[in-house]
Amino acid sequence: MPGNSFGHTFRYTTWGESHGPEIGCVIDGVPPGIALTESDIQVWLDKRRPGQSRFTTQRKEPDTVQIVSGVFEGRTTGTPLAMTIENKDVRSKDYGGIEDKFRPGHADQSYWAKYGIRDYRGGGRSSARETAMRVAAGAVARKVLDHVLGPGIAIRGALVQMGPHEIDRARWDWDIVEDNPFWCPDAKAAKAWETYLDGIRKAGSSIGAVIEVVASGVPAGLGEPVYDKLDADLAKAMMSINAVKSVEIGAGLQAASLSGEENADEMRMDGDKIAFLSNKAGGILGGISSGQDVVVRFAVKPTSSILTPRKTVDRFGRDTEISTKGRHDPCVGIRAVPIGEAMMAIVLADHVLRHRGQCG
Amino acid sequence: MPGNSFGHTFRYTTWGESHGPEIGCVIDGVPPGIALTESDIQVWLDKRRPGQSRFTTQRKEPDTVQIVSGVFEGRTTGTPLAMTIENKDVRSKDYGGIEDKFRPGHADQSYWAKYGIRDYRGGGRSSARETAMRVAAGAVARKVLDHVLGPGIAIRGALVQMGPHEIDRARWDWDIVEDNPFWCPDAKAAKAWETYLDGIRKAGSSIGAVIEVVASGVPAGLGEPVYDKLDADLAKAMMSINAVKSVEIGAGLQAASLSGEENADEMRMDGDKIAFLSNKAGGILGGISSGQDVVVRFAVKPTSSILTPRKTVDRFGRDTEISTKGRHDPCVGIRAVPIGEAMMAIVLADHVLRHRGQCG
Amino acid sequence: MPGNSFGHTFRYTTWGESHGPEIGCVIDGVPPGIALTESDIQVWLDKRRPGQSRFTTQRKEPDTVQIVSGVFEGRTTGTPLAMTIENKDVRSKDYGGIEDKFRPGHADQSYWAKYGIRDYRGGGRSSARETAMRVAAGAVARKVLDHVLGPGIAIRGALVQMGPHEIDRARWDWDIVEDNPFWCPDAKAAKAWETYLDGIRKAGSSIGAVIEVVASGVPAGLGEPVYDKLDADLAKAMMSINAVKSVEIGAGLQAASLSGEENADEMRMDGDKIAFLSNKAGGILGGISSGQDVVVRFAVKPTSSILTPRKTVDRFGRDTEISTKGRHDPCVGIRAVPIGEAMMAIVLADHVLRHRGQCG
Amino acid sequence: MPGNSFGHTFRYTTWGESHGPEIGCVIDGVPPGIALTESDIQVWLDKRRPGQSRFTTQRKEPDTVQIVSGVFEGRTTGTPLAMTIENKDVRSKDYGGIEDKFRPGHADQSYWAKYGIRDYRGGGRSSARETAMRVAAGAVARKVLDHVLGPGIAIRGALVQMGPHEIDRARWDWDIVEDNPFWCPDAKAAKAWETYLDGIRKAGSSIGAVIEVVASGVPAGLGEPVYDKLDADLAKAMMSINAVKSVEIGAGLQAASLSGEENADEMRMDGDKIAFLSNKAGGILGGISSGQDVVVRFAVKPTSSILTPRKTVDRFGRDTEISTKGRHDPCVGIRAVPIGEAMMAIVLADHVLRHRGQCG
Repeated sequence: MPGNSFGHTFRYTTWGESHGPEIGCVIDGVPPGIALTESDIQVWLDKRRPGQSRFTTQRKEPDTVQIVSGVFEGRTTGTPLAMTIENKDVRSKDYGGIEDKFRPGHADQSYWAKYGIRDYRGGGRSSARETAMRVAAGAVARKVLDHVLGPGIAIRGALVQMGPHEIDRARWDWDIVEDNPFWCPDAKAAKAWETYLDGIRKAGSSIGAVIEVVASGVPAGLGEPVYDKLDADLAKAMMSINAVKSVEIGAGLQAASLSGEENADEMRMDGDKIAFLSNKAGGILGGISSGQDVVVRFAVKPTSSILTPRKTVDRFGRDTEISTKGRHDPCVGIRAVPIGEAMMAIVLADHVLRHRGQCG
Repeated sequence: MPGNSFGHTFRYTTWGESHGPEIGCVIDGVPPGIALTESDIQVWLDKRRPGQSRFTTQRKEPDTVQIVSGVFEGRTTGTPLAMTIENKDVRSKDYGGIEDKFRPGHADQSYWAKYGIRDYRGGGRSSARETAMRVAAGAVARKVLDHVLGPGIAIRGALVQMGPHEIDRARWDWDIVEDNPFWCPDAKAAKAWETYLDGIRKAGSSIGAVIEVVASGVPAGLGEPVYDKLDADLAKAMMSINAVKSVEIGAGLQAASLSGEENADEMRMDGDKIAFLSNKAGGILGGISSGQDVVVRFAVKPTSSILTPRKTVDRFGRDTEISTKGRHDPCVGIRAVPIGEAMMAIVLADHVLRHRGQCG
Repeated sequence: MPGNSFGHTFRYTTWGESHGPEIGCVIDGVPPGIALTESDIQVWLDKRRPGQSRFTTQRKEPDTVQIVSGVFEGRTTGTPLAMTIENKDVRSKDYGGIEDKFRPGHADQSYWAKYGIRDYRGGGRSSARETAMRVAAGAVARKVLDHVLGPGIAIRGALVQMGPHEIDRARWDWDIVEDNPFWCPDAKAAKAWETYLDGIRKAGSSIGAVIEVVASGVPAGLGEPVYDKLDADLAKAMMSINAVKSVEIGAGLQAASLSGEENADEMRMDGDKIAFLSNKAGGILGGISSGQDVVVRFAVKPTSSILTPRKTVDRFGRDTEISTKGRHDPCVGIRAVPIGEAMMAIVLADHVLRHRGQCG
Repeated sequence: MPGNSFGHTFRYTTWGESHGPEIGCVIDGVPPGIALTESDIQVWLDKRRPGQSRFTTQRKEPDTVQIVSGVFEGRTTGTPLAMTIENKDVRSKDYGGIEDKFRPGHADQSYWAKYGIRDYRGGGRSSARETAMRVAAGAVARKVLDHVLGPGIAIRGALVQMGPHEIDRARWDWDIVEDNPFWCPDAKAAKAWETYLDGIRKAGSSIGAVIEVVASGVPAGLGEPVYDKLDADLAKAMMSINAVKSVEIGAGLQAASLSGEENADEMRMDGDKIAFLSNKAGGILGGISSGQDVVVRFAVKPTSSILTPRKTVDRFGRDTEISTKGRHDPCVGIRAVPIGEAMMAIVLADHVLRHRGQCG
C-alpha cells in the first residue's frame, strides 16, 4: 500500500493534482444497500468550497461531484464507489516563478528532493485541492455510520482559536457555527476575529488556527489496539491534512500538566449506562472508544503564501526571493473545519466496519 | 491487517500480555546481511527497563531478549526476525479488585465494551509491557537505518516538560540526558524535578509530561503523501504509545499563533546544500522530510493508578470506588522517552525502505 | 484492503461496471520520471479490444484511455497515476430477463447472495469489461519493468489449447501469434481451430481454452516467501481473471506424474552465469525467480452465455429457464491472452519494486 | 506488508527456520470469546507430524504447540493469538555439502540470488517445517468458522493421484481417508499405492501427487471481487505451499475442454433453497461462494532430494554434483493434505470475517 489510500475496511484512494483535468477518489468497502445520491455528497462539498467569503481563497470551483461507479438505482452495490470532480478554474498562465523556486513552508523543495520532478502548477499533488475528495469520502462515511449504527452519531467541527485568540468555551454554541465565516462556536469571538483577520488579509499576511472536531453518539468499543487505536488513526488522519502541525485528543497537551486525580474520568452508573463525570480522555481509553464524545483538536499553520518577499533557493541551487501574488488565504485553518469533520467520519466508519468484522 | 502491526515495508507485529508467559514481536522486511546480535538490542531494552530509579515502577524485569528467527551466523537473512522476552516478575495473587472494577483512566471499561472478555492481570494487552517490544523493534530499525543510509542518523529523546514545569531550551545539553533519571536535557530543571516528583510520589499521586524526539541526519525525500506522510505516520506511531494525548511536529500547537512570516522557514544555499534559517516545520514539508532535523513532541498523561480512591463502576453495573496499591509510576512519561525514540526509528526505517522501493 | 486492489508496492485499484459511465483505475507506487503517454497504453488496449474478429464479442468499444493524474510534461511524477475509459456501447434496452433470473455459470446468483443488490446490466461489476483496466495497468507495469531493469524483459502470451485441441509445441513460433485471431503460436493448429470454432459459434455454443504466458529476461531474486511467493501471487493474479479455473507454473499439473529425477532442473555454469538444463520449475524455486523464463498457464472455462436454454431460478425463488441472445463469445479464452500478459507484467513490476525496497 | 503474512481480517504471520530454536505464528483478528486450548490445535498437528509411516520423512518432532498470547481462562480475548513450537530434532552435524551447493529443484539458488545469505541448515526458511504453523493457524481458523457460522462446515482433504495413478472417484469414501498412510479415499487405490511407493522409496527416488480439498457447508456470499475473489485467494494460499505447481477450482483444467452446455451448473429450487444440478464451478461463481461445496485441487511436485546424483553448481560458480542422503520423503504430497485443509480453513475464516465487516 503506497501512500494515497486511507483506511482498512472502509478504504479510499484519491488522485488528481491542482491543475490536472480532475480529482477523484474510489472507496472500497462501502456496505451495499445504502441510499446515496450525488446531492448527499454535494451538500458537504458546498460547505468546503473556496471563495464563499473574503476570508478564503478566491479560486472559483463549483466542485460538482459525479458518482461514476458503485451506485445502482440510487443504492450502493458493495462494489467500488468512485467519484470525480472536474477542475474548472485552472489559471495556468503565470506561476509566479514557482516553476523553479522553492516556496518556503511549502512542499516544493521536499517533493523535488523525493521525486526529482514536480507538477508545480498550483502545488500539484501537494495542493489542498485534494481535500475536496476527503470531504466527498467523508460524506459517504457519514452514510455508512448511519446505516450501521442508526442515526445517532453527530460529527461537528469548529474553529476554537485563530492566531493567539481562543474562544471562550463558556459561550460555546453549536447553533451559530454556520452563521459566521469562521465556523466559530463563540459569537463574540467570531465578531472580534472578523476585524482581526481583515487586518491580516489586508497586510498580505496569514495566521494559524486550531480546529476542534467532536463526534457524539459514538458507541463504546471502536479501535484496534495496539497500533490501530482509534486515537492513533485519528492522529494520522488529522496530521495528513495539509498544514496541520499538532493533534490532540481530549485534554491533549494540557494532560501533561494534570495530576492523576484531575485527569482520570470518574464513572457512575446512570440507569444501566455508564456516565463519566468528566472527559479528559476525549472519549478514548486504551485506544478504544468509551462511549463518551470523541474529541480531537488540531493546529493548522499559517499559509506561507504571503506578500512579503521571503528568502529562498531555486532548483538550480541559487539564492533568490519569492512572494505570493494573486489568490490568498489569510487563515487556511478555516477551510480545514469540514475536512477535519470528514476525516473523523472516515476513521469512525472504518472502525465501525472493522469492529463488526472481528467482533460481530 | 488487524491492529497489532505497524509499518508497510519494515513491518512488525507484537503479541503478549502483561502477565502471560512472554511478549514477542516479528519484524518482516528487514534487509538481509545486517550484522545483528542480541546485545545490539539488549542495550536499548536496558535503558527502558523499569525499576532503575525510585521514579519508575518497581516491577523487576531483566527483559532479556532472545532472537528466535531471521539471523544466521550473526547476520540478518531477510526472513522474518522474531524476538521474545520472557515475563518473569508476574505477581498474580492479588489484583486489588480490578478483576471486576473498571479503573478510571485505564482501558478496563473500553476493552470490556469491545471484547466482552478481559485479561485483567496487570492490564493484560493494554499494559505498557508491550512497549518493550517496540524498543526491541526500534533497535533493529536503527540498524536498518545505518545499513541503508550509513551511520549518519542520530535519534535522541528527552523529557522537556514535567507537569507544568518546562525546561529552559537555552540550557539544552544532549550530553547530560542520560545522567539524570528523567532524560532531562536541562541540568537545572532535572534538579528541580527531583524534589517535585518526590513530592508527588510520596503523596501517591502522579503527573504528566512532554517528550521530544529529534532525528538528525535524516535525508530529504522520506514520506509518502498524501496519507502516509512522514508526519502522519509519526503522529500515529506516537499516539499509539500508551497514555499519549497529543503529538506535535516542529512548532506544533504554537504554529497556530504564528504569522506566515514567522512560520515559513527561509532557505539559503550553503555550498551545494540547502540551509534552512529556522525549523518551524520540524523537518517535514508536505509530509516529506526536508533534510532538516525531524522534531516530534508528545504529551503523556499522568497514570490513573493513584492512592486516592476514585469513583467508578464494576462490570456488573454497580457504583464502587478504587485506589491503586503496590507498584506505582509517579510520572510514566519518563519511561516513554526510549519508546518515542524507538517509534521514530521504526517510522524512519519503514520510510527509507518504502522510498527505496518506489524511487530507487 | 477490500478486494478491488492488487499489488503491494505497485498497487492499483479499479472501479466501474459494464454499463456505468466509465471504468477506471488508479495505480499508486509508479516510480517517478518514466516517459509515459496515453498511446503507450492504448497500443495494448487495442490488442484486447472486442469485436476484432468474428470470434469475439461484437460489443463496439473504442476503449480510448485518458490519463487523468500522475503524469506531468510526459513523465510520471510518483503521485497516483489514474486512467479512465468511457463506456460507449451501452445497449440498455433489453436485458433478456437477467434482471431477475440467475444465469447458470455466471455470477448473478452469488452477487445477489452476497450483496442483496445487483447491477445486472451487462453483468455489472462482474463483467469482463473490468479487464480493460488490467490491460491499462499492465501497460504501465511494462514501463516500470523497463525503467528499473532496462529493456530486457519480454512478456508474451499464447493460446495453447482450444477445447480438447492442444497445439504441437514443436511448431511453437512466437512470430505468428499476432497473425491469427487466436494468439496461437502453432500455424497449423490455428488453421484447424478456425473451422472448429466456427462450428461452435454457429451452434450458439461455447468452448474453453488454455493460455500460456511466458516472461523472459526476469532476473533471479523476485518473490517474497513464504506467502507472497512469486508463484503464489501469479496464481492469485491469474485466478482473479474472469472465468479462469486453473493455474499452473512450469510443469504444473504434470509435475504430479514426474519422478524426482525428471522434475529437478539440473544446473551447469555457462561462463559466470547459471544455465539450467530444463525448466520444469517454470522459473520459480521456493517462490523466488531463478533467472529462467517464468512460465504460467491457466484454463478459461467456456462462457455460459449460450443459445440452448438452461434450467435456472430467479430471485423470487421460482424455477425458470434462460438462454442468451445477442452478443456472444464462442471462446472467451481468446480475449484472456492480453489480460494474462498484463497480470504477469503487474506481478513482476510489483515484485521488482518490493525487492528493491527490502534488498536494495 | 512483506511476504510472511496471509489474510486480511483473520491475518497471521509466521517465523522460524528448520533448524532454529522455534517456529511460531501470531494470528491477529481472532474474534474474542472462543473456547480454545492447546489440545484443540495439537490434534491437527499430530495429523501432519512427520515420521508416522515409512512413507514420510523420519524427522522426529513431537511438535508440541504452546499458546503464548491471546487466550485467557480458556477463551480467546480478541488480542493477538501467538503460538510456538520448539524445534527438537535438529541434526546439525552434516549438511551433505548443501552449505555451498545448490540442490536442483530446491530454493537454494534462488534464496542465494535474492538475499546473498542463506541459512542452509535443513533448508532454513524454505523448509516445509514452516507448514506446521499453517496447520496450527488452520486449527484456530476452524474454531473461528464454527464460532461465526455454527458447526456446519466440514473441511476435508484427500490424495487423489499419486504419480500417474488416479483414484476411481466412484469408490470415494471419506470414512477411509484416515485409515491408510496416504489420506486416500479409494481403498483399492491405497492398496496399490503402497506397493508403488515402496518401490520408489527403495530406489531412493520420489514422485508427485494431487490433493483435493473440499469444504462443505460454506454459505453463499464469501469472496471479495474482483481481486480478492475466493478462488483467487485459494489459489494463492495453495500455491504458497511448498512444492505446489498447480491449483484448480472445480472442473479446473478440464473446464478448457468442456462446452458451455456441459460446464454451466443448472439450478432448481429445492424448497426455499437453490439446488445446483452439478458442480463444475467448484462452488465459486464470479469469485463468490455459491453455497455449493468449495472444491480445490493442487499438484505437488516430487521432492528433488533423491539418491541419484544430479548435476548442479555451487555458490562459487563451479560445476559439481549432489545427491541426498539421510531423511527422505518419497512422496511429499502426502504430508500436504492436512496443510491444504488448513489453508482452506484460513481462507474461509478470513473471508467470513471480511464479509461480516462489509456486509454485516
